[in-house]
Amino acid sequence: MQLAMVGLGRMGANMVRRLAKNGHECVVFDRSAKAVEDLAKTPGVIGASSVEDLIGKLSKPRAIWLMIPAGVVDDTIKEVVPHLEKGDILIDGGNSYYIDDISRSKMLAEKGIEYVDVGTSGGVWGLERGYCMMIGGPEAVVKHLDPIFKTIAPGIGDIPRTPGRKPDTGTAENGYLHCGQSGAGHFVKMVHNGIEYGMMAAYAEGLGVLKAANIGKHVGEIDAETTPLRDPEHYQYDLPLPDITEVWRRGSVIASWLLDLTASALIEDPALAKFGGRVSDSGEGRWTIKAGIDEGVPTPVLTASLYERFSSRGEADYSNKLLSAMRYAFGGHLEKPHTK
Amino acid sequence: MQLAMVGLGRMGANMVRRLAKNGHECVVFDRSAKAVEDLAKTPGVIGASSVEDLIGKLSKPRAIWLMIPAGVVDDTIKEVVPHLEKGDILIDGGNSYYIDDISRSKMLAEKGIEYVDVGTSGGVWGLERGYCMMIGGPEAVVKHLDPIFKTIAPGIGDIPRTPGRKPDTGTAENGYLHCGQSGAGHFVKMVHNGIEYGMMAAYAEGLGVLKAANIGKHVGEIDAETTPLRDPEHYQYDLPLPDITEVWRRGSVIASWLLDLTASALIEDPALAKFGGRVSDSGEGRWTIKAGIDEGVPTPVLTASLYERFSSRGEADYSNKLLSAMRYAFGGHLEKPHTK
Amino acid sequence: MQLAMVGLGRMGANMVRRLAKNGHECVVFDRSAKAVEDLAKTPGVIGASSVEDLIGKLSKPRAIWLMIPAGVVDDTIKEVVPHLEKGDILIDGGNSYYIDDISRSKMLAEKGIEYVDVGTSGGVWGLERGYCMMIGGPEAVVKHLDPIFKTIAPGIGDIPRTPGRKPDTGTAENGYLHCGQSGAGHFVKMVHNGIEYGMMAAYAEGLGVLKAANIGKHVGEIDAETTPLRDPEHYQYDLPLPDITEVWRRGSVIASWLLDLTASALIEDPALAKFGGRVSDSGEGRWTIKAGIDEGVPTPVLTASLYERFSSRGEADYSNKLLSAMRYAFGGHLEKPHTK
Amino acid sequence: MQLAMVGLGRMGANMVRRLAKNGHECVVFDRSAKAVEDLAKTPGVIGASSVEDLIGKLSKPRAIWLMIPAGVVDDTIKEVVPHLEKGDILIDGGNSYYIDDISRSKMLAEKGIEYVDVGTSGGVWGLERGYCMMIGGPEAVVKHLDPIFKTIAPGIGDIPRTPGRKPDTGTAENGYLHCGQSGAGHFVKMVHNGIEYGMMAAYAEGLGVLKAANIGKHVGEIDAETTPLRDPEHYQYDLPLPDITEVWRRGSVIASWLLDLTASALIEDPALAKFGGRVSDSGEGRWTIKAGIDEGVPTPVLTASLYERFSSRGEADYSNKLLSAMRYAFGGHLEKPHTK
Repeated sequence: MQLAMVGLGRMGANMVRRLAKNGHECVVFDRSAKAVEDLAKTPGVIGASSVEDLIGKLSKPRAIWLMIPAGVVDDTIKEVVPHLEKGDILIDGGNSYYIDDISRSKMLAEKGIEYVDVGTSGGVWGLERGYCMMIGGPEAVVKHLDPIFKTIAPGIGDIPRTPGRKPDTGTAENGYLHCGQSGAGHFVKMVHNGIEYGMMAAYAEGLGVLKAANIGKHVGEIDAETTPLRDPEHYQYDLPLPDITEVWRRGSVIASWLLDLTASALIEDPALAKFGGRVSDSGEGRWTIKAGIDEGVPTPVLTASLYERFSSRGEADYSNKLLSAMRYAFGGHLEKPHTK
Repeated sequence: MQLAMVGLGRMGANMVRRLAKNGHECVVFDRSAKAVEDLAKTPGVIGASSVEDLIGKLSKPRAIWLMIPAGVVDDTIKEVVPHLEKGDILIDGGNSYYIDDISRSKMLAEKGIEYVDVGTSGGVWGLERGYCMMIGGPEAVVKHLDPIFKTIAPGIGDIPRTPGRKPDTGTAENGYLHCGQSGAGHFVKMVHNGIEYGMMAAYAEGLGVLKAANIGKHVGEIDAETTPLRDPEHYQYDLPLPDITEVWRRGSVIASWLLDLTASALIEDPALAKFGGRVSDSGEGRWTIKAGIDEGVPTPVLTASLYERFSSRGEADYSNKLLSAMRYAFGGHLEKPHTK
Repeated sequence: MQLAMVGLGRMGANMVRRLAKNGHECVVFDRSAKAVEDLAKTPGVIGASSVEDLIGKLSKPRAIWLMIPAGVVDDTIKEVVPHLEKGDILIDGGNSYYIDDISRSKMLAEKGIEYVDVGTSGGVWGLERGYCMMIGGPEAVVKHLDPIFKTIAPGIGDIPRTPGRKPDTGTAENGYLHCGQSGAGHFVKMVHNGIEYGMMAAYAEGLGVLKAANIGKHVGEIDAETTPLRDPEHYQYDLPLPDITEVWRRGSVIASWLLDLTASALIEDPALAKFGGRVSDSGEGRWTIKAGIDEGVPTPVLTASLYERFSSRGEADYSNKLLSAMRYAFGGHLEKPHTK
Repeated sequence: MQLAMVGLGRMGANMVRRLAKNGHECVVFDRSAKAVEDLAKTPGVIGASSVEDLIGKLSKPRAIWLMIPAGVVDDTIKEVVPHLEKGDILIDGGNSYYIDDISRSKMLAEKGIEYVDVGTSGGVWGLERGYCMMIGGPEAVVKHLDPIFKTIAPGIGDIPRTPGRKPDTGTAENGYLHCGQSGAGHFVKMVHNGIEYGMMAAYAEGLGVLKAANIGKHVGEIDAETTPLRDPEHYQYDLPLPDITEVWRRGSVIASWLLDLTASALIEDPALAKFGGRVSDSGEGRWTIKAGIDEGVPTPVLTASLYERFSSRGEADYSNKLLSAMRYAFGGHLEKPHTK
């Protein structure tokens, strides 16, 4: 079927390639004329020079997929909507807050325009692996778009069937799922990312403990400000992290795709020299925590992983200065200089 | 080659089966005569009626693998050692604390007995998948045992090679790894389990948030003790957890073996009715946290996941009573009765 | 000066008593006619039979203090506003979310009605100690109400002056403070409560560790599901908690008013037998965490203290069941029965 | 009575001053001859030029108080013991690990030497306020030293009696307490410091949230790596932190001595410009967490406060680099440069 794609970044462009390769007609637009021009060379892809041009090239009911930063979705919707008609479909495949989906879908419903929210996971690997999609919106519309989702999704592939799952029980096995009404797709994707933060932190902390397992080889000084290591003979290991992450891929309980990537990253650059350790967060982790708080569901692991990212960017600095100020006030403790 | 196995529980018995199937001779002992008798029916497996009988049936240098609870390893070593000779090998394949490996290996070295510590991951699935092994001890001894490790391990199988990894760079790709001197194997396994706790908690918390996404459907009462949900219309989702865990297996960033198991568990019993939620911990999580503390490496996620298990067993109860007592003292707040 | 008080619960009634005793005229209303009748017996206090009656008894500009649950403030404002005139003042002294102050103040400003938000701390002890107040709103209005605040506040009393603080530098030393524009009062009070949660948890956790210091006296069983205590001889202390909290009040670094209350609670009931350990939270803790997340400021301690309260109420149960389900799936681990 | 003091740092010297002023005879020694010389000018204080000299100047049974870094206590005991006789008393008033007290007391008991462990709180303020003491050891010996403890302690002073506490129920009201057998003093002090970490962190985090309450004034950029602040109008407050900490001292629930010190620190230097935010930890926090883990008592707040200190010193750096490496691997995310 036909699909319009607005936003030809890493993910948008690869989705279009995947669709076109499988016989869907794609009309594409991006603020960068170069990006449009490049992608339009792909057979089955038609470039558009403006939003208006894009919409003019679509047959009705139009289906327009937005694959753009969450921060510009509302402005883009405002730009697109005046050109749309009753029955047309807007799909937000980016990382919108599900609460925005709820209000957008209401607002668009008043104009008879359908709205579908799609949380998409797969990162830069999606062209090859396919994208896992979590979908929210009215059932009929989601069904209408099924050929698109089926093509973008990974399909069953060679991942074994879950024991106990009966065949033909929906699309989840194909890597896409209609999760519920408007916002459900991004809600599930939000939590997916929250879990992702937690898993990443679990690996990172564990590997941090392994990395420092030779700390007993370094003699410490004795003063009232420093805790001496009681048993330095317990920390004499120089552990081969690239091999350890590799061996865990093979039959261990913690095998995962994130571990695959970590093993690969450590083979390339065991010292991780090209990274400074300032870790961004792009919103879903924060929203997951807020949802947990609203629900009264404790999420200590997910929250800790978010806060590690905040701290990695220096955002705990004022609090830390306060701790030093208090220690100085009651104990005359001076900070130790940074000697690393 | 020949191997003696002491301890024929889930994991020990399956390892013997895997070894015997692949042509190794196994002499086996367990406190349960029935367990010995059953396993000795397997071709290539010889039963023993006592530790002494077991040792008498071994050719030298003897190799004895202990697969028993960590709490009885020292007693078993005491029982076995008087019958051993210089050059014999003891292998602890259970979940010992690596600090015990350090002292045991020293003590046994004085008698000329070799000691190898093996952290083993794979759970009840190891017979089929093979066991991932993390090994500590003297290099020559570990090399001598290589045929055993190679057979117990999963091998390369159909898990793709890590991009960037050169072929023939050690055994990690086969699912076993000599990590370093005595204790290194259990140190790495300890951290493996720490990570496992963190990952499990990440999934459990995330799914907990998804499960409660319909909380807005339940009207709350208004009083000074209860926080009203500000936006009940944001929490109206009845989310299909079995399908969501399934779809995440297909191309998402958080695909993993633990997720495979979770998807299967939710298919069988979506309400998890047979579980009460009292979660045990078997030591490695605690030890990982302690190692991180000794090293000065923060592990907030791993620690939070351990504490969730403590709390699940009611071990925070006194602290919680204190909180209620303080709230009553300053604010006259009475506890709300349990109405769930 | 004259003040109207709506809401004669613990705090509202005590504030009125404190004001009346110091020569202010108070007109009071509550849904409970009995509460009005009782309080109106106090010299200087005039009862009202309805909101309309209350407003009719006030001289202009009217100053009306609402001391009611956060959940009913908006409805009460709606009821009151039609009877008010330009220049009248509404004061919300309860635990409103500061975000509501921002919208309310805007809405009321359109009608020329002034709005002041007051975060009030002191609990049931305020009649005796005075109430600490954190105030938001337009400077002129806050100044106009200064005689009220000065009377409700504790005053300097016998709390020593902060070293380095110059005399006559504002009202903070008297126990009330204009913190900023609308919402600032409740914002500061919100964070105050967030800190309160953290401090309470710090004491509760520490006392929990002291309480369990005799755990080595209880022999544990050995199995693969239970972590044995390695050094039971290190946990043989039966510690006198009521005396310990008392001694900490005397010259220790952790002396505080919350500790005073804890010492008193433990004298009365060392086993805390009348508390079940289900700890409520009344919103400010949640909002503090959300503010920290919006700001990118990590608050791991405050968050952990909130989550302990969630867990104490059983709200982690589903997540815990999932953990058990996963452990069963990969390791065949069964839950241990509750034997406490 | 007579007391020998070894170690004339901040705390040791002030204790001697407090004792001498109240009529006790003090014989003092320190590695720094200058420190001995200075303190010996105080009436009632006798300097010693060596450990041997010190011991020679004491009447029997000798009582020797060690006020030295935990890391050198064992060496000092080794140096002192050969000169002691049956019935002499060694007191460790520093920050020793209580586990060392257990082994030291056993070792010394074999020689008939008494050992008392004293956890001491009060910091640089103890000269003026007195020191809060938590004491472990045999009852008779602790009783024998009562005049010393009574003098060093704050006494009842003007701190009000705890409601419900009967008079003459032990020494806790005087600011010192015999907590139990050997190690009990340092165990309780250890947990005291763990609580101290948690309280400090609670204030520091809360004040961090207040400090950033104007973050909505700073416009952010829009890209896929940065979470935009949804409601900048909610974060427009420039809050007066020195005044806020002051007002909280007056009748609020979170009044405490640590808050007093914080208010003073913020008056002197609101920007905390002289602190870098690298926060030391001196062992007790770590040991408290380990004790909680051994006991199975969750301490999420105390642990989070310890980890904040680790992170403040850059000890999470490797873990953070790993997070960046993973994000790059799955999403092509590049780190944002440090632009603060």
